[in-house]
Amino acid sequence: MATKTGPSLSDIKEARSRLQGVARETPVYGSESLSRQVGRPVSLKAENLQRTGSFKVRGAVNKLATLSEGERRAGVVAASAGNHGQALAWAAREAGVKATVFMPQDAPMAKVEPTKNYGAKAELTGGSFEDALHAASAHAEATGATFVHPYEDEKVIAGQGTIGLELFEQVPDLETVVIPVGGGGLASGIALALRSAKHDIRIVGVQAGLDGWTIADGIAVKSVGERTGLILDEVLDDLVSVTDDEICRAIVLLLERTKLVVEGAGAVGVAALLAGKAGGQGPAVAILSGGNIDPTVLISVMRHGLTSAGRYLVVRSRLQDRPGELIKLLKLVAEERGNVVSVEHHREGMDVPVTESEIELTLAMRDEHHCAVLLESLRSLGYAVERLR
Amino acid sequence: MATKTGPSLSDIKEARSRLQGVARETPVYGSESLSRQVGRPVSLKAENLQRTGSFKVRGAVNKLATLSEGERRAGVVAASAGNHGQALAWAAREAGVKATVFMPQDAPMAKVEPTKNYGAKAELTGGSFEDALHAASAHAEATGATFVHPYEDEKVIAGQGTIGLELFEQVPDLETVVIPVGGGGLASGIALALRSAKHDIRIVGVQAGLDGWTIADGIAVKSVGERTGLILDEVLDDLVSVTDDEICRAIVLLLERTKLVVEGAGAVGVAALLAGKAGGQGPAVAILSGGNIDPTVLISVMRHGLTSAGRYLVVRSRLQDRPGELIKLLKLVAEERGNVVSVEHHREGMDVPVTESEIELTLAMRDEHHCAVLLESLRSLGYAVERLR
Repeated sequence: MATKTGPSLSDIKEARSRLQGVARETPVYGSESLSRQVGRPVSLKAENLQRTGSFKVRGAVNKLATLSEGERRAGVVAASAGNHGQALAWAAREAGVKATVFMPQDAPMAKVEPTKNYGAKAELTGGSFEDALHAASAHAEATGATFVHPYEDEKVIAGQGTIGLELFEQVPDLETVVIPVGGGGLASGIALALRSAKHDIRIVGVQAGLDGWTIADGIAVKSVGERTGLILDEVLDDLVSVTDDEICRAIVLLLERTKLVVEGAGAVGVAALLAGKAGGQGPAVAILSGGNIDPTVLISVMRHGLTSAGRYLVVRSRLQDRPGELIKLLKLVAEERGNVVSVEHHREGMDVPVTESEIELTLAMRDEHHCAVLLESLRSLGYAVERLR
Repeated sequence: MATKTGPSLSDIKEARSRLQGVARETPVYGSESLSRQVGRPVSLKAENLQRTGSFKVRGAVNKLATLSEGERRAGVVAASAGNHGQALAWAAREAGVKATVFMPQDAPMAKVEPTKNYGAKAELTGGSFEDALHAASAHAEATGATFVHPYEDEKVIAGQGTIGLELFEQVPDLETVVIPVGGGGLASGIALALRSAKHDIRIVGVQAGLDGWTIADGIAVKSVGERTGLILDEVLDDLVSVTDDEICRAIVLLLERTKLVVEGAGAVGVAALLAGKAGGQGPAVAILSGGNIDPTVLISVMRHGLTSAGRYLVVRSRLQDRPGELIKLLKLVAEERGNVVSVEHHREGMDVPVTESEIELTLAMRDEHHCAVLLESLRSLGYAVERLR
């Protein structure tokens, strides 16, 4: 089914031939533990292993390949605090074209540094994404460079659509596809490719952060684009949204079980499947759209996810304030095979008698059951134990 | 070159046909930033994406496929606190054979749980690996089950050798291969395959933890096996060792740049390349042997690696002990775009005057340069700042 508002199947096929030998055909992996938890066969399209760490390279390569000689000479420009900027920088270098990427001054290191390393000029400017956008537009007007929009562009959408063509070959029994939706370019491209060749696939878009800040910063735009919005209205079966808690759980599961680092936006499809929000039946594929997550953020996400899963236990108790009491408690913890992460003493505070001190232990545990056994054991020995997390 | 002490090229080719459709042919990825840092083209053989998260599945599948009908009925048994046990459990299930895996009682959750999920009987027994080994031998004798050794077994070595055959096809210009060495099964197999088909490849083994505890627990055995030792003497060009610091740096780089989760043992090849210990010239391939790292351990490794790279800054300073002083300091930190991870106050301690309090700040920073700018700025405003990490 061709649509008037987006690229046709043959546009997407042309994009695929342009991508050959430049972008990667990323692998699809099944995951037993994910399938077990979701209750249906789940496969993962690992676009986090794409060049520059996200699918964006597909659209950028296709866009660059279709510039005229004059446009190539004038270069390309983008406003992006993230994957689009890195992808354009990389694709421009491969195509031998000059690129300038405008970013807000607080853009994370994990995204600024690679953009520079790929040979683009990175301009850190202003406090907001809008400031960067204005600067990029001004640069385009002043220099004649081509402004490359991250999703409101038929060539870019066609590039992202190549994922759909690969999926046909990699997952023949495909029934449901779950796709992150930010600006909507990825979902538009994939859905156009899938719909044009097979009608009975369920296609679900997943958004995040509709109510405010989200860990899925890659798709944290206020709404889909005008062009992509028209496409999505036509091709999506459902558009759902997930919470940051659900996303953190998905990130940790992907990390631990599939050995893949996936950023917040890249994990929303798995989050939707785990939360039972994707609907449909039978084999499902989640598009892991990217892996560019700042490691300091990843640490916080892991702590959060592990605590939810009972892998960290935080308990508060009281000790007589005299030598040897702490050792006694820690011996009990060690006997129950709890692994001490931190010990904090609190002596100030109204509730604590002067002869006692309050202690807060953070412990690495096996699972929720292990936590319960340890708590029970401490209580049976007379410790007043309060579980904080 | 065939060797009398190990499997022949045709044994390894037979193993490959047995693995087809069961184990994965794992991808090879180049990494730009790794190549830049090492100063030569570096590719990565991603065995962390292998089924069960490590190469061990190859040897286990080959072993299972060569059991007699009687042996299949009696089942298989292993002693393993790690990847070998998981791999045998998985391969046995695929082959329809019963498996029992003995482990020390402190075996990490990340390894116990999958072994059970793959349908094996997991026996947690004793405090040391030797206890588990004795129990496994006793079980084999009592039940007639086949004890599967993790590396002193020709079928197992032949299975691991299939990686060498894949490398020929995936990296035609291969000049140096860097392989983790624990018991030596992986390096023996790969080296036998490579040597038998192409003589001028440099093959380097990498060990860790020779002086004691190591983060690379997967290869923390006291020495290579008798059989594998004889093979390695013959086929390795060099055997080097890396430190835990070097391993942590490699794990963080792989995580951040290639989006791959790699365990300590799996990162030693990259660690050796980064440390300039692998020798040789031209394109190098590191075997990422596995990805099974406990997430709580991974968090510690990341903290360590990020601190080394100036991404965390820990500073100690002093404040007048009165309201508003902390806010003043934190405002300065925010102006320099430092991101506060934790704030600790220390009021006890001989060195601190009674009118002052000591404060310890942990900050997430961009890089070493960013740290230097912030420290300079604080000092120029009169703060006595001591950098702790």
